[in-house]
Amino acid sequence: MEYTKPLQKLIEYFQKLPSIGPKTAQRLALHILKMDKSEVENFAGAMIEAKTTIKYCSNCFNISSSDPCEICSSISRNKETICVVSEAKDLIAIEKTNEYNGLYHVLQGLISPIDGIGPDDIKVKELLNRVHKENIKEIILALNPSVEGEATALYLSKLLKPFGIKVSRIAYGIPLGSELEYTDELTLIRALESRLEM
Amino acid sequence: MEYTKPLQKLIEYFQKLPSIGPKTAQRLALHILKMDKSEVENFAGAMIEAKTTIKYCSNCFNISSSDPCEICSSISRNKETICVVSEAKDLIAIEKTNEYNGLYHVLQGLISPIDGIGPDDIKVKELLNRVHKENIKEIILALNPSVEGEATALYLSKLLKPFGIKVSRIAYGIPLGSELEYTDELTLIRALESRLEM
Repeated sequence: MEYTKPLQKLIEYFQKLPSIGPKTAQRLALHILKMDKSEVENFAGAMIEAKTTIKYCSNCFNISSSDPCEICSSISRNKETICVVSEAKDLIAIEKTNEYNGLYHVLQGLISPIDGIGPDDIKVKELLNRVHKENIKEIILALNPSVEGEATALYLSKLLKPFGIKVSRIAYGIPLGSELEYTDELTLIRALESRLEM
Repeated sequence: MEYTKPLQKLIEYFQKLPSIGPKTAQRLALHILKMDKSEVENFAGAMIEAKTTIKYCSNCFNISSSDPCEICSSISRNKETICVVSEAKDLIAIEKTNEYNGLYHVLQGLISPIDGIGPDDIKVKELLNRVHKENIKEIILALNPSVEGEATALYLSKLLKPFGIKVSRIAYGIPLGSELEYTDELTLIRALESRLEM
């Protein structure tokens, strides 16, 4: 015996979401059945509303309901610095620190030859255009410390050098609150390499 | 800066689902934005369809699109045994073993005084009615080995004894493929208590 078809279909949709396995998909779908009908309708409506109303800023490619986005059109932000991130969620993570007051550029991906993603598939050209047109003094690369992040950072730094602007990368090292003993070797190597004079 | 409102709303809906924390909810909502519009609409539609078309069998309270459900109306199942489970997902787990050929009764919960769930809040009365009317010879209690599961099993076994039918409980013990060394004490105690002569 299997679940009835409408339930099976819903489980399959949940299973397509990232980090949702078959067991979790089943639990989520069964939870939907237990919710109030109006709540299910609101949830489904929120999904469609988010998909249809949310646009990307045509300047920095951040998720936004306005174009240009809040950050690009803000008068209180420093317009001479661009922080380059891979995804909108990274931008949010940085915004939450309340430390950075410059602009952003969301690449919407990372260069990954294995997955067939080249520089033309992400917003690299658009970043260069901005450096051309806007009065940018520094580019901060805030990409994940993965193979793809490293490759993309290297590629971008080479492209940006001819502009004669400062190109920096966020520091890799031991996260605060962690213990040296449990830090993986690669992180330790990076932390040693990037040591700062005191 | 926060996410735009429609996105924030979607994240909140995802976060209400069981086992979905704020980070996962964010990732799922951002994934929805990346999906094709038609796919999002199908997902939302599947949600509403599942909620509106799926009913519960009025006999065993299993999830079903027909009433009585497939299992209750099957002519090839043994109608003298009822396996009592807490949720439909437990029924599915047992069905997947292909070992059990009797009927089921889904309690739709477990007795849990802390959460204010008493015997009247789950399908206990309905189970007794079935034992009255149907020609039942054995009740197998297949409830989770939790405090609530134990309490419910004990309560049911007391209620069912006067009927003079066999009431059994699935065995608790060391799961197959695991190691004695890593088995928790309570499980070991149960496994010792329930030892079988060879």
